[in-house]
Amino acid sequence: MEKLAVLGCGVVGSGVVELFEKNKQLIQKRCGKQLELAYILDLRDFPDKPYADKVVKDIQVILNDPEVSVVAECMGGVNPAFDFVKSCLEAGKSVSTSNKELVAAKGDILLKKAKEHDCNFFFEASVGGAIPIIRPLHKCLAANEFSAIAGILNGTTNFILNKMIKENMDFSSALALAQEKGYAEKDPTADIEGYDACRKICILSSLAFGKHVYPESVYTKGIREVELKDAKFCGQLGYSIKLIARVQKLDNGKILPAVLPMAVEEDNLLSQVNGVYNAIMVRGDGIGKAMFYGKGAGKFPTASAVLGDMIEQLQLEHTCISQTWQNIHDNSFIENFASFAAKYYFRTSSADVHQLTEIFGEIQEKTISTDEEETVFLTASPLNERELDKAVKTLAQNHIQVLAKYPVLES
Amino acid sequence: MEKLAVLGCGVVGSGVVELFEKNKQLIQKRCGKQLELAYILDLRDFPDKPYADKVVKDIQVILNDPEVSVVAECMGGVNPAFDFVKSCLEAGKSVSTSNKELVAAKGDILLKKAKEHDCNFFFEASVGGAIPIIRPLHKCLAANEFSAIAGILNGTTNFILNKMIKENMDFSSALALAQEKGYAEKDPTADIEGYDACRKICILSSLAFGKHVYPESVYTKGIREVELKDAKFCGQLGYSIKLIARVQKLDNGKILPAVLPMAVEEDNLLSQVNGVYNAIMVRGDGIGKAMFYGKGAGKFPTASAVLGDMIEQLQLEHTCISQTWQNIHDNSFIENFASFAAKYYFRTSSADVHQLTEIFGEIQEKTISTDEEETVFLTASPLNERELDKAVKTLAQNHIQVLAKYPVLES
Repeated sequence: MEKLAVLGCGVVGSGVVELFEKNKQLIQKRCGKQLELAYILDLRDFPDKPYADKVVKDIQVILNDPEVSVVAECMGGVNPAFDFVKSCLEAGKSVSTSNKELVAAKGDILLKKAKEHDCNFFFEASVGGAIPIIRPLHKCLAANEFSAIAGILNGTTNFILNKMIKENMDFSSALALAQEKGYAEKDPTADIEGYDACRKICILSSLAFGKHVYPESVYTKGIREVELKDAKFCGQLGYSIKLIARVQKLDNGKILPAVLPMAVEEDNLLSQVNGVYNAIMVRGDGIGKAMFYGKGAGKFPTASAVLGDMIEQLQLEHTCISQTWQNIHDNSFIENFASFAAKYYFRTSSADVHQLTEIFGEIQEKTISTDEEETVFLTASPLNERELDKAVKTLAQNHIQVLAKYPVLES
Repeated sequence: MEKLAVLGCGVVGSGVVELFEKNKQLIQKRCGKQLELAYILDLRDFPDKPYADKVVKDIQVILNDPEVSVVAECMGGVNPAFDFVKSCLEAGKSVSTSNKELVAAKGDILLKKAKEHDCNFFFEASVGGAIPIIRPLHKCLAANEFSAIAGILNGTTNFILNKMIKENMDFSSALALAQEKGYAEKDPTADIEGYDACRKICILSSLAFGKHVYPESVYTKGIREVELKDAKFCGQLGYSIKLIARVQKLDNGKILPAVLPMAVEEDNLLSQVNGVYNAIMVRGDGIGKAMFYGKGAGKFPTASAVLGDMIEQLQLEHTCISQTWQNIHDNSFIENFASFAAKYYFRTSSADVHQLTEIFGEIQEKTISTDEEETVFLTASPLNERELDKAVKTLAQNHIQVLAKYPVLES
């Protein structure tokens, strides 16, 4: 008999407890062990729940029980989660977490700690909720050199953009609806401004490229400024505006992670990912491209990922070497966002094809949508930040004002 | 230093060798070991290849070298692959295979053999080529009770159907093009008749539900009879015809695997999977649904999956318990296809809504496409095989001939 413990009995933690109890027979069979969910750490009591008698208030109870081999951390936030997880690892107990903030801020330290104590720090649930992505990246695709990852990693913003694109709702109304449905928090900053997606692309980048990428090193722009009319015009040109978290490996060997709203071509499956679903496209030299799709959040989807980690941890006797990365505080392996280059969608004040062609060379869409004296077009060639600035200045000299611009996701 | 061996140096085997040598540094880092690809078993010589000196003709050379711990089987076919793999496992060497025929026919025996000798028989490459699906199913999603799997598991038939749907090409021309491009074999029977997809759904069903499902137990219908006009009419109704390999768990606890052409609604991401790509949708009580997408075949995509298995095998000290199933020759856990129920797309000789409504109750599409005195419609309710037979007979009594029918994939 091995004992499990869950830290934090909020949405995800209670999901872990309930899904475990529901599928206990199946889970025991799949990991070949008799299991008992022995402790739930929470400051609250849950007198009406069947697991009321498992609730403890002191982490020491869990740390001091040698029969507890695997712990789920579902508290969220960096503190006190970091201290608790560190203590568990130091006691040789493997930890599975759903806490992306913790992994993005302290993953390198905790992975090192796990290795020192020959146990495991797993975090499948921290990116993409139910979607298997961490294990596929470092196991199934371990023979690949990765060249790029691009994903829809935040369901709240995807829901909002979807309502704008498909139902003509403006940003504020769509946000209000997301809050009403419980998809967005009262303070939606972390979602709307892209911070949540940023943490997740940090985790994927660290794993794929082997060095810790901190959120502070990643250019991050949210969706607050996305206007309904751009969602509509993009649609007319065959594109959807999506909040994309992406990283690419450049020819100079550096990586360029970023989070920003991008125009995604309708042929690209990512453009078809609707509502609160997430999806992640991975490119590697062996596979070409592969995509992973599923529910990016929610009680049972996230619990499924936490428990999947625990089931593997129960079968492992040592630290899993492929799921780790270096802690490097020198971030010279990260390219500055100034090097980011993409084709662009532009909405400008009225302009004619002749003027635009003079400024941009060829432009991709000969048919230019116009509305209220505005012009919408796509550039045929990629522009980096310097070229973009120059183009905006030249437009201004020609009395053409840039009203909106979005980079186009490479297909 | 650990030694690797590759059995069979055809398309996949040579891909394994080349991808390994290309990314050797990365692979060694990810599995934490120094590696040497020591032997390639093939009857042919490859004097012009850089790996010419590794070629051996006798499996005993590999079996007798105690430093060889992991072997890739890329020969294809059941014999002699089965004997070679069995001998490797008996010698305690883990085997990774891309051979779906072998896994579907002998997976249970080989998994048992691996367990007896505390090594591993892995087969990520046998389903979906580059797509991580085997490991996600038994690891990431191990806390789920699975309710259904449905996939596009054969790239050749998907390419052909795609050409019919998008480019108005008839079946024979599309098949000829697939052969010209090297996507279809000279004898395309295994693809066209659904046998290849059948082997793959057998493997997924066995893994998800824990008992070996043999191809003989699975209702299998290919795409030879798909007519261009149904591809077109389906499109007009918002559906695509796809060769779907699927399995569902029924309320009576039995499973119902089948391979057949189905009408897939455009909202379903599976309908957007084009060309030689594969995709697999998985449903479980924790995750809801998740989808996995990528290249279903090809030299390097398949090699990527084989090497991913080998990299994990190099890190494992014991048999992976979650990736196994029982060998049960009693197939009473498999429901007869007569219980299969779905809504149906029908193309019949001319009929009016009144007649059809009398026969089927409600029909889903009020707007009925007609062409050349034919009628196309969707039923509003699912029909099982008995109800389907009855409906066809009633239609005949009303002098309405059924010209084509396709079940609709549940959304």
